Parts: sequence; C-alpha cells; structure tokens
Amino acid sequence: MNMPTSVMRTVFFVSDGTGITAETLGHSLLSQFEGTHYRQVRVPFVDSPEKARDCVQRIQEAGQRDGLRPIVVSTLVSAAAAEALLETDALVLNLFATFIEPLEQELGCKASRTIGQSHGRANSEDYAARIEAVNFTLAHDDGVSDVDLDKSDVILVGVSRSGKTPTSLYLALQFGIKAANYPLIPEDFERNRLPGALAPHRHKLFGLSISPDRLTQIRQERRPDSRYAALENCRWEIDQAQKLMRREGVRWLDSTTKSIEEIAATLMQTVKLDRHTF
Amino acid sequence: MNMPTSVMRTVFFVSDGTGITAETLGHSLLSQFEGTHYRQVRVPFVDSPEKARDCVQRIQEAGQRDGLRPIVVSTLVSAAAAEALLETDALVLNLFATFIEPLEQELGCKASRTIGQSHGRANSEDYAARIEAVNFTLAHDDGVSDVDLDKSDVILVGVSRSGKTPTSLYLALQFGIKAANYPLIPEDFERNRLPGALAPHRHKLFGLSISPDRLTQIRQERRPDSRYAALENCRWEIDQAQKLMRREGVRWLDSTTKSIEEIAATLMQTVKLDRHTF
Repeated sequence: MNMPTSVMRTVFFVSDGTGITAETLGHSLLSQFEGTHYRQVRVPFVDSPEKARDCVQRIQEAGQRDGLRPIVVSTLVSAAAAEALLETDALVLNLFATFIEPLEQELGCKASRTIGQSHGRANSEDYAARIEAVNFTLAHDDGVSDVDLDKSDVILVGVSRSGKTPTSLYLALQFGIKAANYPLIPEDFERNRLPGALAPHRHKLFGLSISPDRLTQIRQERRPDSRYAALENCRWEIDQAQKLMRREGVRWLDSTTKSIEEIAATLMQTVKLDRHTF
Repeated sequence: MNMPTSVMRTVFFVSDGTGITAETLGHSLLSQFEGTHYRQVRVPFVDSPEKARDCVQRIQEAGQRDGLRPIVVSTLVSAAAAEALLETDALVLNLFATFIEPLEQELGCKASRTIGQSHGRANSEDYAARIEAVNFTLAHDDGVSDVDLDKSDVILVGVSRSGKTPTSLYLALQFGIKAANYPLIPEDFERNRLPGALAPHRHKLFGLSISPDRLTQIRQERRPDSRYAALENCRWEIDQAQKLMRREGVRWLDSTTKSIEEIAATLMQTVKLDRHTF
C-alpha cells in the first residue's frame, strides 16, 4: 500500500522549565491539523543565554534539513531568550509574550518573570498531597485493602482490566486525589450485591465499563485462551457489572473510546471532585 | 496573626474537552503573579451552545460576587461558543483563537475545528503504550521483580523514600516510558556494590538522592521513632548511596526541592529518553 507522501516538519517545545506547558499547548494546537506529521523536539531548562543560543542553532539546522520552517512553541519568560528565538527563520508562538501583558493590565501588577515557576515545587504542600495520594492509591489498588477506605476521595469499581488502575494513579499524581479501586468479580454477580466493604461508601463509587471486544483483546494479552479472556465470559461479566451498578445507583461510564484524561475529567465532574493541588 | 487581606478573583478554565490544556496554560501564566489568590473553576466538556450559555452565566455570577472581573482561559474551538464568552465582562484569553490562525497560514491548511481532540483517545496505540508502561512499572516497583528488566527504558535507584515510585509512575502515565525502580539498601552498601540484578543495565540507571532532613521527615511519618527514620541513619544511607552511585558512574539528581515534573524532565534529558506517546 502506498502511503501518501507527507512533508515532515520539526516542532520545538522550548521552555525555561520542564517544557510541559509548551508541549501541552503545542499538542493541543497541532491536534487540529490531522494528517500532518511532525518531528517533535522538547528543549527544557533553557535558562541561560548560552542555552538559548544552542536552541536557536538547533532550530536553524532543523529548518535547513527539512527545507521547511520549524514551528516553535515557547514559554520562555526571559525577554532576551525570547528575542533570540525570534531571530530564527521559524514560526514562533510564545505563550508568555502573548498573554502576560493583558494579564498584567487586568491584575494591575507586574509578572515576576521568574523562570521555571509553573511545574517547580513552588508549594511543598502540593507535592506532599500528591505523594500521599499516590501512596494511598497504591495501597488500595485492586481491592487489596479495605483499611481506611473512608479516607478515599473516590472508589473506582469495574470488572478486571476495565482501566481502574491507570485512572486511579492518574487522579492521584495529577490532582492529589485519593482514588481507591475495587474489582467486581463473578462472586459479586452471583451474590448479586456489591462487595461488602463498599456498602458504606456507595456515594463515593464510580464505575468503569468497557466493550466486550476490547476487554477480550486486553485479557487475551495477559492470559491467552483462558476462560477469563473468552469473549463470552467478558460479555457476561460486563453485562452483570452494568446491571449491578444500575441497581445500586452507581454512576459509571464506558471507557472504551476514552483517554485516561477524559475518564478522569468526566469522573471529577460527575462525583464533583476538585483537585487537591494548585 | 493577621493575614493581609487579599482580593479573591475567580479564574475559569473553559474547554470543549477535558480542560487540561486550559488549566496547564492558566497555571503557567498565573504562577507569574505571586501573592495573588484565585478561586479556580474548571469547566470541561463545553460542547453545545446550551453548555456555553450556562458557562457564561457562571462567569457573570462570579464577577458580581467577587466585585472583580473573572479571568477566563479558554481553549474553545467552536466559534459560536468562543464568541458567547466574549459577551461576558471578563478578561478572556483564548488559546485557540490566538494561535490557530498563524498556524493555518504557516501550514497552508485549515484547522479541522474538531472539538475534544487534544486529550481524546485519538490514537489507541498511544493509549495502549501508556497502559503497558503503567503495568510494567507497577510490576517492577521497588525491586519486586528482576524479570524483563532488559525491557525497561530506565531503572531508577535510590534509598527508600527518595521519590522513585511517584517518578516512575509519572514517566509511565505521562510519556509511556517503562520505568522500573530498585531500592539501594544497607546490604548493598555493606557489599559495596550495586544489586546484582542491575549490573547488566548500568547504562539505564538513574539515581535519586534527597536531603537527610527531608528523608527523616518522610520516614518518620511511616515509622515514627524507628532506626529506619532516624536522622543519623538517613544521613548514613544517603552518603553511602551517593558514594556508590559516584563509583559506579550512575547519573543522579537531588530530588529535595524538585517537583515530579522537574525530576522527570531532567531524567529524560540526561538519559536521552523520548516520550513514547504523541
């Protein structure tokens, strides 16, 4: 099959900090141009004139190699460094330069222009909250412990391999949310009740469902040709889990076509949970 | 003690998707204005005219309550929804409206204006890579398994509670990087060698160190008044671990004053690791 030849352009994410903001911004914008392919280069910690000059050099080399102007998404705070980038033959989108002035006017004060603020450990309480949430989530993964379930912010339920663990960890790391998770297993369906430990926490439950086709595929990778992975069994478990959640009034969503970020955002909106970090 | 009275202003992060881009961008800009306090409201999934109108209503109410114009950081793609926001008495910073036009000109094509693209599961390979990395990282947390260590992208080492687990999970979830981690324990210092399982993977090792004061504080919370948590012991373990890493040529950083994002970005730069996800 012939693939359409597409032009390869280089995109630089340039920052004096981790580069996360520049990258998030860049991905968000570029996702609007489907079918375009990019070579992505993240350049974090550009916190001196020398590093800015190195970066300018790399941008110029990429432009010459590609025969196309690179795109530069920058969150550089230092005026000197930001200006140096403008000297290159590239499309430069600078978050800071664009938005900081209207904010200064609105707030009636000057930006501190301190570098590396955004994802720095500005607030160590913030850091401690995330670590504590990660520890809690790991200690309450897959129903391993019922202890302190009352300290959880949310408890995810669903059949094995419906996406509970990655979602719980994402909530903990990103937002400092203590997310326990608990599997729904055939024994629960036979008893026709939620696991006993969950009963007092019904208001904190959030369910994940998944399509049988996707579930069988995931389970096949772990235990090929097992009853556990068989399509018929996956279909039965999912059906039973949905009936159980419906009867017990547990809110749930189908994770099949959703990213971890979408699942987390929907959950937080549904359960009315706020981030515990800035 | 009297706290200085400070004006409380409301910041809205408005998006037709998860709101992550708007929030990341907003935090990055606001971190430049220290000492200002904000009430933060995330409004995700604004994907219909009705939801846009609800949002406008909330912005207006907040402005009236605060007696100050709200700040709105928006990534709304729909022109109608974005225009509705401009009707409010607020400072509206719209990422999409600002940067998409120069990008369209540069790329010579129109943005698709599809909503919820940025953190949607546009690419299911991407999703699978992250889940696989999380599973790998959990299976190789705290040295629990030596199996398949050769499949790891990086192996974090350091004394107990130096931040290995949260960093490993962050690398896996955010970038699809398979990060194992392995504790350095008193037995290793007495033998004066790296754990045997790590020897073939020396080029993939990355160390985390921490200040004795911080370590004793973290360990005290877990095992109060233990030898494990005692300042003298923490000082000895850290000193031994640093000597061992220096002798074995393991690159490392001090995590004490760094955020998880900074540790991850530094590690990726040092070990020359790229994200495995878009």
